[in-house]
Amino acid sequence: LTSVEPAHFADELRALKHRVTAMGRVAEERVQLALQAVVNRDREVLKQVIDGDDRLNRAQVEIDDHCFRLLALFQPVAVDLRAVVSALRINTDLERVGDLAVNLAEAGQRYLLHAPVKRLVDLPRMGDLALTMLREALDAFVSRDTAAAYNVLAQDDWLDALNNQIVRELLTYMLGSSRVVEPSVDLILMARHLERIGDHATNIAEDVIFIVEARDIRHRSGLPPGPERRRQSTVAPV
Amino acid sequence: LTSVEPAHFADELRALKHRVTAMGRVAEERVQLALQAVVNRDREVLKQVIDGDDRLNRAQVEIDDHCFRLLALFQPVAVDLRAVVSALRINTDLERVGDLAVNLAEAGQRYLLHAPVKRLVDLPRMGDLALTMLREALDAFVSRDTAAAYNVLAQDDWLDALNNQIVRELLTYMLGSSRVVEPSVDLILMARHLERIGDHATNIAEDVIFIVEARDIRHRSGLPPGPERRRQSTVAPV
Repeated sequence: LTSVEPAHFADELRALKHRVTAMGRVAEERVQLALQAVVNRDREVLKQVIDGDDRLNRAQVEIDDHCFRLLALFQPVAVDLRAVVSALRINTDLERVGDLAVNLAEAGQRYLLHAPVKRLVDLPRMGDLALTMLREALDAFVSRDTAAAYNVLAQDDWLDALNNQIVRELLTYMLGSSRVVEPSVDLILMARHLERIGDHATNIAEDVIFIVEARDIRHRSGLPPGPERRRQSTVAPV
Repeated sequence: LTSVEPAHFADELRALKHRVTAMGRVAEERVQLALQAVVNRDREVLKQVIDGDDRLNRAQVEIDDHCFRLLALFQPVAVDLRAVVSALRINTDLERVGDLAVNLAEAGQRYLLHAPVKRLVDLPRMGDLALTMLREALDAFVSRDTAAAYNVLAQDDWLDALNNQIVRELLTYMLGSSRVVEPSVDLILMARHLERIGDHATNIAEDVIFIVEARDIRHRSGLPPGPERRRQSTVAPV
């Protein structure tokens, strides 16, 4: 650690942001790959997603090391401290998104053991929305754009609504035919995994607002646009 | 911030640990309350759990503030830095456990709209195991007991096995009778929520090992007892 020549903090922070966004792109790709493989019924690609978590895991360890090095070498305060601590948190969120890509692929493998329940339209739509939220949250982190971060928070409600709609529809199918029970449970779990990806995007957006505004919006009322961001459960009462 | 009289760092760290464990106890209580209310079919208590997340949310903001204050005032390094950053991470885990208590109660409310699927024995057993893991992980955090932390990691495999068993049994019921489809989906989601609580206990145990051993065991091979701790999905192939 002490053998490191301290570069200017701003340069280091830029490098750290670059690493975080690169990790975000890998996480996004893996989710996309898993979803497309389910739609295309491609078992080989699902297996690749399940076996290929190493790159994200390595990235997580490197980013953690980088953050600790910055904290120890530069002892940042105020906005700089918040930025480094937020990078640590975002790192955890992105690693979880990678895990969720694996969870999606595992549910997808089980889903493909059965005949298709229906044409998969809503699940990819839900995936597109969740991944758009993730990308926009990370862009907001790089540019410290709080307007974009608030926009991510607003989109989480749409994602939850889409999830509720998918689950209600699947329950109707399941009540009609025991043949679709097993694959439908896996579709419900996949929708739940995508909803969780939206929650991680929300966490990142909240961190951006925290870095810039130095206030914690997670549980305070009276703030635009969605004050209480508690994560929603999967299914609305049916 | 500058008006704070800096107490000795060790005293501050002790106070921080006290806060974290107190928050852990509240989170544990809320999960227990939700599970008991499902078993006792007590809608009133479920509503209390859903409406009562404020205490944990306040605790989370206070612990975050405390950690940032310690980082800015004392600029800790090495094991002290790892302890404060880990407290920040554990704080996030405990807040998520509180959210999962709410998710459990919401699924419980839907579950109670239907006649009982079966006597609920395995779900409380799973809850006991998950909460034991959480308690032991937090005790290990306070005492920096890595042996206890490794023990928590080992228990996560039992929790996953219990979850798989529950899901397989429920799928069998659902295939036999469409009457139990809807409540069974909620039982599967509740089991999934409990499995996630075990994952958060695992995160905390990994942080304890990280604080003490200064190494990240999350994704490295060749380390006792469970090298790759990727979170498992809910259902084994059936």
